[in-house]
Amino acid sequence: MKIILDAFGGDNAPVETIKGAAMAVAEYGVKMILTGDEQEIRCVAGEQGVPLDGIELVHAPQVIPVCAEPTSIMKEYADSSLAVGLRLLAEGEGDAFVTAGSSGALVVGASLMVKRIKGIKRAAFAPTIPCVGGSGNYMLMDSGANVECRPEMLMQFGVMGSAYMNKIMGIERPRVGLINVGVEESKGGELQLAAYKLLQKAPVNFVGNVEPRELPFGACDVAVCDGFSGNIVLKLTEGVASAFTKQIKGVFMKNLGTKLAAAAVKGGMSEFKKQMDYTEHGGAALLGTARPTIKAHGSSNAKAFKNAIRQAKLFAEQDVIGEIELGLAELKQRGQELEV
Amino acid sequence: MKIILDAFGGDNAPVETIKGAAMAVAEYGVKMILTGDEQEIRCVAGEQGVPLDGIELVHAPQVIPVCAEPTSIMKEYADSSLAVGLRLLAEGEGDAFVTAGSSGALVVGASLMVKRIKGIKRAAFAPTIPCVGGSGNYMLMDSGANVECRPEMLMQFGVMGSAYMNKIMGIERPRVGLINVGVEESKGGELQLAAYKLLQKAPVNFVGNVEPRELPFGACDVAVCDGFSGNIVLKLTEGVASAFTKQIKGVFMKNLGTKLAAAAVKGGMSEFKKQMDYTEHGGAALLGTARPTIKAHGSSNAKAFKNAIRQAKLFAEQDVIGEIELGLAELKQRGQELEV
Repeated sequence: MKIILDAFGGDNAPVETIKGAAMAVAEYGVKMILTGDEQEIRCVAGEQGVPLDGIELVHAPQVIPVCAEPTSIMKEYADSSLAVGLRLLAEGEGDAFVTAGSSGALVVGASLMVKRIKGIKRAAFAPTIPCVGGSGNYMLMDSGANVECRPEMLMQFGVMGSAYMNKIMGIERPRVGLINVGVEESKGGELQLAAYKLLQKAPVNFVGNVEPRELPFGACDVAVCDGFSGNIVLKLTEGVASAFTKQIKGVFMKNLGTKLAAAAVKGGMSEFKKQMDYTEHGGAALLGTARPTIKAHGSSNAKAFKNAIRQAKLFAEQDVIGEIELGLAELKQRGQELEV
Repeated sequence: MKIILDAFGGDNAPVETIKGAAMAVAEYGVKMILTGDEQEIRCVAGEQGVPLDGIELVHAPQVIPVCAEPTSIMKEYADSSLAVGLRLLAEGEGDAFVTAGSSGALVVGASLMVKRIKGIKRAAFAPTIPCVGGSGNYMLMDSGANVECRPEMLMQFGVMGSAYMNKIMGIERPRVGLINVGVEESKGGELQLAAYKLLQKAPVNFVGNVEPRELPFGACDVAVCDGFSGNIVLKLTEGVASAFTKQIKGVFMKNLGTKLAAAAVKGGMSEFKKQMDYTEHGGAALLGTARPTIKAHGSSNAKAFKNAIRQAKLFAEQDVIGEIELGLAELKQRGQELEV
């Protein structure tokens, strides 16, 4: 198993990417390819005392800035660590790819270089979000790759998310829900009304519309929506949790009594914090591309990269893409009814 | 000042509506009109020992079910407590109207009976949501009345929300933000791109795009978006806060030590809970109709109704609608540049 890592993606590259890669080699026995400025990687690894055993370096002289036009990955930044990593993945030099770099460039580069799974309209970001109840996590798809979506795309998100949650999380018949403003079939705009009908007939365990209030309580295993709505769900969940934490901290810091109280609940709180911590959960799968790709959080540290690499390994090992293809084949068989 | 209250709207009607009305009469010195089955109101008031001083009753034999088709308020349910209340408001029998009944029927009934402010394309729900930082609350508009919106509507939401936050919350130049997937002007779909341009030229303090992550930290005073997105923001904020509270409670209930800790932070926690409590905040203003209308939470109790009545009183007293008309007049003056 060989995982390709963009050594220059994210706020803390390349120190944390290199460390994360070395940790993954030691812990999971994977082989790694790191893409980026070879000399700098060797220099940083030396400085930090990180061994490069089991790590192959492939030189890439450029770094694509996060704010760059995503399509620039195909021309202006064709020699960036992100582009080179995707090219290696497309050529079969590695089994999966991880980056914490530009999301937009990743979607464009992966769609054009690695290509999409045959029949898939669009690739989409699919992070798993901690929740209370259910399996403790739900997959949100799309969380921002496609700001505007057609109903067929939402149906395919359901099929892909279902395959992933089944193979990676071991959930037998993942409950697929459509994010909507009400539970009744008649709710939502044109997109939701049409997607509801398609999902009903798709080879997934469709549980109908799910209201955003119920998402944090694990109302479904795969929550399907357009990328604009999904981005709201992702970022607002982060924001509310973070604001809440800040308020609770304020309550605990008030006086000596409350500070002692903080000490008493420290164990439970840190367990709870661990559950909410993105560094524990790897990254967001980019589902729909022909080979496994993981987008790690931009502010990932070594541990987060290590976990994203583990996730990429599972993604390849469990043949999620083969499972998606099975779903698509079944979808095709039902094609005449579906009128897609 | 006379406030009309739909006595049969909400899960706890008519007991809590009657109590809330009596509390408002005693506390704020307002006069009230209650619409609904007169005999039942008298009977419940008697049973509960609630005085009906200062409360006028206007008989309405029907109650419109929450699940009824919203347009049914104009024909099938034209004699419902909600419809009768709106008719009284339109005829100038009261200064403002409060209901905890069907949101959809309220929007339809208010738009057709009370009518919209001249020049306003659509009325929208505008609740205020607690946040950390800023003024402690931000207005979210639209939170669900219009699932699909045009750019002009979003601009008008900015103008209306601004007028409300200025007059009711005393914020001098409310910061109006556009909810989007990134802060850059180029982010979002067609709706956001066009709305950004219109808001830039509108007579409001437009602070640009706001990411949902920043909303709970008070990044703006008025957050503008389509009703589908706004409904996600409203309900997800509620859901995440509620899931978080549940988890924290679990941490505190673990053992004797943590239970003692809970006692130590009880004061701070209940203050915090009060801040998050919707019954303290009244309801959501329905902005855009020609006379003041407040939608109270469906599960409102007497205190929540009382606060919603106070909010309706302020809405009328502070002449928010006059302020919106001033904004529209300025918008019209800038008309040639705006190409609306």
